[in-house]
Amino acid sequence: MAGVTEFPHPYVPPDLKLPGYVPVVLPKSTIVGIYLGVSLLVVLTIWFISGRSSKRSSLDRLLMCWWAFTGLTHMFLEGYFVFSPEFYKDKSAFYLAEVWKEYSKGDSRYAARDSAIVSVEGVTAVLEGPASLLAVYAIATGKSYSYLLQFAISLGQLYGTLIYFLTAVLEGDNFATSPFYYYAYYVIANSFWLVIPSLIAVRCWRKTCAAFSAQAQKKVKSR
Amino acid sequence: MAGVTEFPHPYVPPDLKLPGYVPVVLPKSTIVGIYLGVSLLVVLTIWFISGRSSKRSSLDRLLMCWWAFTGLTHMFLEGYFVFSPEFYKDKSAFYLAEVWKEYSKGDSRYAARDSAIVSVEGVTAVLEGPASLLAVYAIATGKSYSYLLQFAISLGQLYGTLIYFLTAVLEGDNFATSPFYYYAYYVIANSFWLVIPSLIAVRCWRKTCAAFSAQAQKKVKSR
Repeated sequence: MAGVTEFPHPYVPPDLKLPGYVPVVLPKSTIVGIYLGVSLLVVLTIWFISGRSSKRSSLDRLLMCWWAFTGLTHMFLEGYFVFSPEFYKDKSAFYLAEVWKEYSKGDSRYAARDSAIVSVEGVTAVLEGPASLLAVYAIATGKSYSYLLQFAISLGQLYGTLIYFLTAVLEGDNFATSPFYYYAYYVIANSFWLVIPSLIAVRCWRKTCAAFSAQAQKKVKSR
Repeated sequence: MAGVTEFPHPYVPPDLKLPGYVPVVLPKSTIVGIYLGVSLLVVLTIWFISGRSSKRSSLDRLLMCWWAFTGLTHMFLEGYFVFSPEFYKDKSAFYLAEVWKEYSKGDSRYAARDSAIVSVEGVTAVLEGPASLLAVYAIATGKSYSYLLQFAISLGQLYGTLIYFLTAVLEGDNFATSPFYYYAYYVIANSFWLVIPSLIAVRCWRKTCAAFSAQAQKKVKSR
């Protein structure tokens, strides 16, 4: 169209076609700061509300904070990405579009709408997001499915992160604008979703084995 | 190179480049027949061996058959694919190469070495394959982690199959040579890994919830 200015995008590979790309408006510090600030607010809110019951352990309260934080991240941040294929054209400096324009500097497959990324993010946003909020409720009310649900979501997060990194390696692992973005956004930010789900999965495994062992002993005793 | 005959491949899209492709030698019925025959042999072997203990339920024996069958499929069939990027060049009519040359008629992304396919198959072959055989042992010996392990592998299989279908849909779902291969190989063969893991996951969920409920009641009683 005549009169339309095309902006060059900052992503790698440079020959990636993103017609209608509009550059990110907010500074990096603002984008990351809002995410960390809102997350801290969520965590503190859950921490104080969950502290009202004296029966609840600090570890359970910490887990409730994690599930609220990760669940809202999955549903809002990742959910927006999944259902907004044209986020890079956004002209309104809408915060969620800004997040993904900025994050694409660490992994341009987001802007390029790589099908593996969209599939993994789809499962994460639609299934794991709501399930994470259910986990907050399950811990709060001591449901019998609490550990199993946490185990299931953690395995899903691990599976997704594994596919995320494996597909990148198989495609040449060259999607970051600079080493800074490679490490800060792609490696470090994602590593939380490898470390924390691993720890939770191991804990749930132990708790579940203990419950089955107790059940088996009870059966032996009652004979 | 001079003197080398290039064979046209039968896959869709036709512009897929597969230099050095060697056509499938064995008839379709032989390839499928060997897989079904060997699988039946595995299932019957496990069924009869597991029947020696009268304490074991028929359902547990059936599950042992499933885990042996799916575990060996993951490790050998899918394991071969993951570590043989040039299977379509095989000239020796090696059975496992024939399987994937034939299966690629239902989904050419296997011959094309799509990174999402290789990643999902890698996780399936390397992690879920051995874990499935561990599940046979866990059921046989009544381990306390038996249900949790079956639950974990089933979720992994469901996640993998979901990513498998989602990536195909996002990329246009046009990878089959004909409707016959589309339904027979891509839809029907894979649907077993949606239906059976779902049933097993639901059963494991119920069994685990029951164990935690029993443990909770015991704690209340012992107060």
